[in-house]
Amino acid sequence: MSTDTNNLQVRLVRTPKGVPVEADFQLVETDPPAIGEGEVLCRNLWLSLDPYMRSQIAGRHLSGSIAPGDVLLGETVAEVIASHHDAIPVGAIVRGFGGWQTLSALPGSSVAALPEALCESPSLALGALGMPGLTAWAGLKHHVDIQPDATLLLGAATGAVGSVAAGLARHWGARVVGVVGSEAKRRYALETLGCTEVINRNDRSDTLDEALRRACPDGIDIYFDLVGGALLHSASAQLAHGGHIILCGLMAEYNSTERSGGPAPGLMLRARATLSSLVVYDYEHQRGAFIEECLPLIQDGAIAFREDITDSLAGAPAAFCRLMRGENFGKALVRVG
Amino acid sequence: MSTDTNNLQVRLVRTPKGVPVEADFQLVETDPPAIGEGEVLCRNLWLSLDPYMRSQIAGRHLSGSIAPGDVLLGETVAEVIASHHDAIPVGAIVRGFGGWQTLSALPGSSVAALPEALCESPSLALGALGMPGLTAWAGLKHHVDIQPDATLLLGAATGAVGSVAAGLARHWGARVVGVVGSEAKRRYALETLGCTEVINRNDRSDTLDEALRRACPDGIDIYFDLVGGALLHSASAQLAHGGHIILCGLMAEYNSTERSGGPAPGLMLRARATLSSLVVYDYEHQRGAFIEECLPLIQDGAIAFREDITDSLAGAPAAFCRLMRGENFGKALVRVG
Repeated sequence: MSTDTNNLQVRLVRTPKGVPVEADFQLVETDPPAIGEGEVLCRNLWLSLDPYMRSQIAGRHLSGSIAPGDVLLGETVAEVIASHHDAIPVGAIVRGFGGWQTLSALPGSSVAALPEALCESPSLALGALGMPGLTAWAGLKHHVDIQPDATLLLGAATGAVGSVAAGLARHWGARVVGVVGSEAKRRYALETLGCTEVINRNDRSDTLDEALRRACPDGIDIYFDLVGGALLHSASAQLAHGGHIILCGLMAEYNSTERSGGPAPGLMLRARATLSSLVVYDYEHQRGAFIEECLPLIQDGAIAFREDITDSLAGAPAAFCRLMRGENFGKALVRVG
Repeated sequence: MSTDTNNLQVRLVRTPKGVPVEADFQLVETDPPAIGEGEVLCRNLWLSLDPYMRSQIAGRHLSGSIAPGDVLLGETVAEVIASHHDAIPVGAIVRGFGGWQTLSALPGSSVAALPEALCESPSLALGALGMPGLTAWAGLKHHVDIQPDATLLLGAATGAVGSVAAGLARHWGARVVGVVGSEAKRRYALETLGCTEVINRNDRSDTLDEALRRACPDGIDIYFDLVGGALLHSASAQLAHGGHIILCGLMAEYNSTERSGGPAPGLMLRARATLSSLVVYDYEHQRGAFIEECLPLIQDGAIAFREDITDSLAGAPAAFCRLMRGENFGKALVRVG
């Protein structure tokens, strides 16, 4: 059987310690999957690489665990090439959890046809108008009430969630302070995302605390926490009165076995601060409202975003390792087919 | 001048390390204070001893700092014996911050006449119907929306805040789980406060985690955190979905120089938990509404409470040290005059 019809998969070889390396993954060729009743066969077009996958590999993510030998999980956009499901015809472009492989058999009930407006740029459905965008929108729309000129602090500001959050917050009148990991990202966040201030956390000319104090002279009204770790602690020490922390991601912890504590209670009390917990899966039912609100903002440029595209499934492990080292620049995507 | 008209004061001798001892304090006799324009001279009747005072002594409380040589601060109920303030006549019974002394000169604008209903039991204005009660009410009324059969966890359940919180939460239909430090307190919390389950944290037959799991089989919906430390961490690991932590006091940390982190972000996210910060001073304007709601509940026994009374100012340092060791049983009060 030719590789044209076989299934290429990326499997986990061993559970990485610390930051993953390419040798933790393996490319495997297998027979195409058979589809059972109610299932559809998907030819995957795009695969999303996301920080939360590190947590699945460690066996402790809300959405599932991956052990050595397993195919990596991941969200995909795919073309349906065979269907045993009445509502999903062959030829449909669908979003689903196809994983790190070229072909997936999925329950028809678990995939969703892409809205018409996204079919021309289907990768959008995995990034700015997909789960990362929904995360940003849910946090800023449902966890806080952004006041004009409020100071919003964002870690990983040029990442998939950060870019959309920056655009939305600017659109709603906030002053956005971004934290990024390189000079190139700093310039992009200032010039393209419209951040008011951007801190390069790898610029050692001053400490993170000092840099935050300078960038947020009136304190931080909202900290949208996508990273955890040191930034969470520095931010919680500089909250404005009535400040709000939206806990959402723990990127800084994903490669560690240690679990750090949250913001010190004394600091929270001093600021009368609130902390809320955002898990994007809880907002699936709002995806339509989110796309309706954000699509025009993307079309008119109010929300800017970048895609960091890898051109084959074979390149996915290296791309994921770059993501884990914070070296991606924009939403990490793999063009699978 | 006789001691009848002199002022007896308790002053700090040295900043204690760890749990305070009596020798950290000193009784001093001085001349009675003179009152200036707009001031009133108060003969203190009752002094409230509260855990937050430890934090003032350490120089880091929101409400003020106390250095060696200073008179200790504290809330008092007093009789006005001289007045240079139009609205506060001699003979008025007032609440104010008279400190650890028999006589205080206070700005008339800083004292408040006791509501008529409290004049017969003025110590109530420092306990169940004072700041501790207001703390309990503000937390349960304004930070959460108690659902029937919700599980509320309370540390220091027989303390001044805890007793009122237990009574209010029971009245509003919650299942109250208390944590206390002795068998006598455990029985009191079960039999008198109406807690559904009570854990004696000094009973080493199982760990705090195990005891909490048994007492809260469906998880903790609301944790009213009066103590911080180990209980905060155990509770945050056993939050129910949508759980809420009200941060309020850090008794477990008051005698330590270390500041522990808050609940681990991963635990908060798993439970979709919210955390809010309660500082009672922010609710001063609601004191009337609080008394109106809680006075009848105290009168009809729905809210039970105890007072742990020391009969002279000279006994205040020993009583405060007992409070710091968790050996008080009920609201710690000093009958000054």
